[in-house]
Amino acid sequence: MVPLNQWIKIKAPATVANMVCGFDILGFAVNNPYDEMEMRLVNRAAGQASITIINIDDYNLPTDPEKNVAGAALLAMIEEYTANSIIEKSFADDATQTGLVDFSTIGFEVKINKLIKPGSGVGSSAASSAGAVVGANYLLGNPFTKDDLVRFAMNGEKVASGVKHADNIAPCIHGGVTLVRSIFPLEVIALPSPTLFVTIVHPQIEVRTADARSILKQNVQLKDAIKQWGNIAGLVAGLMKGDYDLIGRSLEDVIIEPVRSILIPGFDDLKKACKAAGALGGGISGSGPSIFFLSKEKETAIAVEKEMKKLYEGLELAHHTYVTTINQTGVEIEA
Amino acid sequence: MVPLNQWIKIKAPATVANMVCGFDILGFAVNNPYDEMEMRLVNRAAGQASITIINIDDYNLPTDPEKNVAGAALLAMIEEYTANSIIEKSFADDATQTGLVDFSTIGFEVKINKLIKPGSGVGSSAASSAGAVVGANYLLGNPFTKDDLVRFAMNGEKVASGVKHADNIAPCIHGGVTLVRSIFPLEVIALPSPTLFVTIVHPQIEVRTADARSILKQNVQLKDAIKQWGNIAGLVAGLMKGDYDLIGRSLEDVIIEPVRSILIPGFDDLKKACKAAGALGGGISGSGPSIFFLSKEKETAIAVEKEMKKLYEGLELAHHTYVTTINQTGVEIEA
Repeated sequence: MVPLNQWIKIKAPATVANMVCGFDILGFAVNNPYDEMEMRLVNRAAGQASITIINIDDYNLPTDPEKNVAGAALLAMIEEYTANSIIEKSFADDATQTGLVDFSTIGFEVKINKLIKPGSGVGSSAASSAGAVVGANYLLGNPFTKDDLVRFAMNGEKVASGVKHADNIAPCIHGGVTLVRSIFPLEVIALPSPTLFVTIVHPQIEVRTADARSILKQNVQLKDAIKQWGNIAGLVAGLMKGDYDLIGRSLEDVIIEPVRSILIPGFDDLKKACKAAGALGGGISGSGPSIFFLSKEKETAIAVEKEMKKLYEGLELAHHTYVTTINQTGVEIEA
Repeated sequence: MVPLNQWIKIKAPATVANMVCGFDILGFAVNNPYDEMEMRLVNRAAGQASITIINIDDYNLPTDPEKNVAGAALLAMIEEYTANSIIEKSFADDATQTGLVDFSTIGFEVKINKLIKPGSGVGSSAASSAGAVVGANYLLGNPFTKDDLVRFAMNGEKVASGVKHADNIAPCIHGGVTLVRSIFPLEVIALPSPTLFVTIVHPQIEVRTADARSILKQNVQLKDAIKQWGNIAGLVAGLMKGDYDLIGRSLEDVIIEPVRSILIPGFDDLKKACKAAGALGGGISGSGPSIFFLSKEKETAIAVEKEMKKLYEGLELAHHTYVTTINQTGVEIEA
């Protein structure tokens, strides 16, 4: 356990959910951008909340713990920590643990510096939720497993988008490429992947996750579903075999992208240009508006970035770009 | 090239298509049952067909090459062999080739001893088609790739069921577990797998592939499709990681099995009994009526077989069972 009042620093990576064909099941973490957070345990006066959120960025996100994604995730964690069953499970067999934290007199202070713009579609809310629970777990002496932490952090996603999904949370906590095979019960599988360069463009338009979800058709044609699961199987096999061409061929989405891409200006032209520049493939990051493309070589990823800038400059649409790699560690703590 | 009139022997394995969650994309070959075939090149008189089918079993399958699955596959192969482009592609750069076969004066004789009962749902037609083209390719000095052979053999599947599908042909020719990521253009991916024991029961009822296809719904709910692709991704990852528990958890089909299983007496009870006996999982083989279950240990596979026999004896339904393993070689030639 980390002593009271001692700050720890946290780095929570951005994540790309869906990975084109793997809607709601696949995702990966990237090394840039990332959120910076600081956390500590403090004594609190009676009546004071168990979680104090301090925003040190300019996004004016809610500081009420129940309305803040990091707060909601931490509340779920405190609840389970305080329940007897978990206390016994976690500490009983670990003699190095110095004691239990009594959350009636102790609380978390959380400083959040969001460098991942909210609403960008690269897991901004997931980074806050995941960073908070990984940080809290470290402060408490790591009583919880990564799967526990994913479960807690999903409460943050519910605050952000109304749905407890794990496709950003899982890679943010585990790092690398993750498969969420099942949500209830939660099952996250780490998928090995070869070195991949990631180019991301965030056109500065708003696509609300709830809206992007509501325009999806609730039924799909069986023949399209078969094509999609061929691609998903191909992508998993390609990642695990390190077969770049197979990864590229499998990065095709016949179900979600045709519907959602209409919300993103220039999507079809951008896709053509990025593939022509040598990208293996790519598509909408999460529910957008960010778009990502994967490349085998760094030079290709930079060429892809140039195409992205050219296109959005042509459309006179403000945008940010990133050239980065897959983050293999997930949320990191600097004590 | 094998000299005229010299017989070769062929062993063509049974195959299990779909592999529960991988409808139309996954399949694997088994070591038992298998078809036995013999083939040779012979001089033929003018007017005589280029393919002579000799059935040495009692199934009275058609011997007209266009109506026989092996014949249809061979006709597609001869057509492409005779086309100049393929002759140049295949022989031009291989000095060991002794010459081209002129199919206006030479033909194939094919003896087929079907040990895989037609209509059993374990790739009986695929074994004949695949066995024939692998045998023919060997006789001709192997001018064609395995992907070519899969394409030719799919013509046999069209004769058998009206649809050019590759989910039995691909594992029959490649061996092991295969993923057909795409049919047009054809892309078959070999998936590594750990040692798995396979128990198969063939209840002696008729389920026509065309009927089993026609009862499927043409639309599926997006939420079911997502569950299915989580399982497919989990199954591929489980096979490649050698993670038996993950394989077991992923062998779940929420789309096809609920519809097709109504055609198979005792299916639900059988599934419960096989899982209770320790099987990792299983389901309908292809379009049925055969049912397969996978086990980690041979003893479990035998216990599963006992449950299958018990159930179908109870239902007074004639049946065959097999306890076998995944065949890793595909069609074999004994020259």
